Amino acid sequence: ETSAKVIDGKSIAKQIRDEITVEISRMKDTVGVVPGLAVILVGDRKDSATYVRNKKKACESVGINSYEVNLPEDSTEQEVLKHISGFNDDPTVHGILVQLPLPSHMNEQNILNSVCIEKDVDGFHPLNIGRLAMRGREPLFVSCTPKGCIELLHRYGVEIKGRRAVVIGRSNIVGTPAALLLQREDATVSVVHSRTKNPEEITRQADIIIAAVGQANMVRGNWIKPGAVVIDVGINAVEDAKSAKGYRLVGDVCYEEACKIASAITPVPGGVGPMTIAMLLSNTLSSAKRIHNFK
Amino acid sequence: ETSAKVIDGKSIAKQIRDEITVEISRMKDTVGVVPGLAVILVGDRKDSATYVRNKKKACESVGINSYEVNLPEDSTEQEVLKHISGFNDDPTVHGILVQLPLPSHMNEQNILNSVCIEKDVDGFHPLNIGRLAMRGREPLFVSCTPKGCIELLHRYGVEIKGRRAVVIGRSNIVGTPAALLLQREDATVSVVHSRTKNPEEITRQADIIIAAVGQANMVRGNWIKPGAVVIDVGINAVEDAKSAKGYRLVGDVCYEEACKIASAITPVPGGVGPMTIAMLLSNTLSSAKRIHNFK
Ligand SMILES: NC(=O)C1=CN([C@@H]2O[C@H](COP(=O)(O)OP(=O)(O)OC[C@H]3O[C@@H](n4cnc5c(N)ncnc54)[C@H](OP(=O)(O)O)[C@@H]3O)[C@@H](O)[C@H]2O)C=CC1
Ligand SMILES: NC(=O)C1=CN([C@@H]2O[C@H](COP(=O)(O)OP(=O)(O)OC[C@H]3O[C@@H](n4cnc5c(N)ncnc54)[C@H](OP(=O)(O)O)[C@@H]3O)[C@@H](O)[C@H]2O)C=CC1
Repeated sequence: ETSAKVIDGKSIAKQIRDEITVEISRMKDTVGVVPGLAVILVGDRKDSATYVRNKKKACESVGINSYEVNLPEDSTEQEVLKHISGFNDDPTVHGILVQLPLPSHMNEQNILNSVCIEKDVDGFHPLNIGRLAMRGREPLFVSCTPKGCIELLHRYGVEIKGRRAVVIGRSNIVGTPAALLLQREDATVSVVHSRTKNPEEITRQADIIIAAVGQANMVRGNWIKPGAVVIDVGINAVEDAKSAKGYRLVGDVCYEEACKIASAITPVPGGVGPMTIAMLLSNTLSSAKRIHNFK
Repeated sequence: ETSAKVIDGKSIAKQIRDEITVEISRMKDTVGVVPGLAVILVGDRKDSATYVRNKKKACESVGINSYEVNLPEDSTEQEVLKHISGFNDDPTVHGILVQLPLPSHMNEQNILNSVCIEKDVDGFHPLNIGRLAMRGREPLFVSCTPKGCIELLHRYGVEIKGRRAVVIGRSNIVGTPAALLLQREDATVSVVHSRTKNPEEITRQADIIIAAVGQANMVRGNWIKPGAVVIDVGINAVEDAKSAKGYRLVGDVCYEEACKIASAITPVPGGVGPMTIAMLLSNTLSSAKRIHNFK
């Protein structure tokens, strides 16, 4: 008796990547420019290496040039900054991405701040967050995951203006920009976090829920107003003896319960995840267009 | 049968100005530096002239040097920028303030962005707003009016952490930074604006209400949860035949009704207003301390 429409992030992301592919070849044909994305990876965390590999593959699939720098774990902050500065000056690079987390001996703020704002395709620069928060200002880039969430709402025709939205989580890269984006589109937004006393009561008032917490299955069916739209950003590994790997991925929302109450919901995996990479490609394309003034 | 405690902004502001006076003389005696505030006024709007005069007077009363530039209405943007640039480079100036609104032929964004961030005592720069929105980042300055609102809550011992807060209004200079400040202090914040469908229902859930709307008496008694704390930023002129001027000033909250239901409330005038100027002085002092590394 599943009633919710499943918001198919994988297929929407595919559609967006196809649109990007077309735009990139149009750009190449018209002005001879190919967008380029530079990725800096420090250390040898397995998960980070996988993310970087997926991003490179995604770039190739749409025709974006990708440049990768792999630095050893014990590199100095200076070395990372040197590479960023090189990419800042490199006209074939339109987006620069520093894979997080960085080794603990490095100052993440210094490094992220050194990416020039015109190439900050991750949208993490405080100037971009500030512009996102302000009326009448436009950020150059919006962080990929929250942008992907809103894009899903748009492509599924979910009205945002005048609706109540609850964002659970307030991180710099997901929760906070998601809340600012929803407010820009005239939702009435409440932000729930770890100090919130009655999260279920507040969440139950929402027409739109974005959950970005990192707690497996935290949002239960009775947190959800019947008919609400649920975007589940969480990716959590839970033990699963039946799986070959010994675990499986679940979201921050208890899907089995929520899909009976919500009107639409993103699955995990296959919901927000694929959209994040699609938005990275989209930001890189926009950046190249802006730098070359190509419409 | 008024039950609410009246939050006396005038007396708190006086107390803060006294604290600032002491700090300024200590700074002068120890390192020989006197904080300086530069104010740029373009055109001859009466209200703006009054604000600027009040700010100058407040500076004098605590021992801050004030510098004023008055430019004619038909000045060019270039001329304003030239003065800002001069103040940016002037070591005796620690804060720069451009009185708004500017004449309509000028680009407000360009002008505000040209104030160097170390002297942006108004806290209007998007970099400051971005840092305010982000966990782990610190803005150099917080806009004076919202900072004054939070200061009132602090000085009256109102707990913020874990409480529900509703901010009505989302302007760049009041509502948005007020919401970000409350969230930084771990309130659970909802932002109500002109597209919100059921503002009274949402407002009624709040333990703390900050109203910054510009609509006389909009927040009625039945919008307020018994015992809530109400901070009224609004300053609205309403006709009043009994007054010599023909009008009187009221807030965004219907005081007569609210004071019977709230546990504490700011009056208008005499609430947030005096705090705004006190925070400007406080920001100017902090700036001078930071620039001269004086603790
Ligand atoms: N699909 C994708 O592409 C992406 C998925 N993710 C996933 O999204 C999730 C969130 O990521 P991220 O934002 O980076 O995580 P962070 O850990 O940075 O932030 C988590 C947020 O959730 C809040 N929180 C934690 N516990 C609770 C609780 N019990 N009740 C209410 N709020 C709580 C925290 O509150 P407080 O601020 O008070 O500490 C914090 O604001 C993770 O599962 C992550 O793997 C992340 C990025 C991309
Ligand atoms: N005490 C002091 O020192 C100061 C006082 N003020 C006073 O504070 C008030 C607000 O100032 P400011 O923030 O600059 O004003 P703005 O006009 O810039 O912003 C007003 C905000 O209120 C919202 N709003 C308007 N009408 C309604 C409504 N009917 N219901 C809900 N929300 C509504 C608007 O929503 P939307 O965004 O959807 O348009 C907007 O976000 C004014 O009265 C001003 O005089 C201001 C600064 C300093």
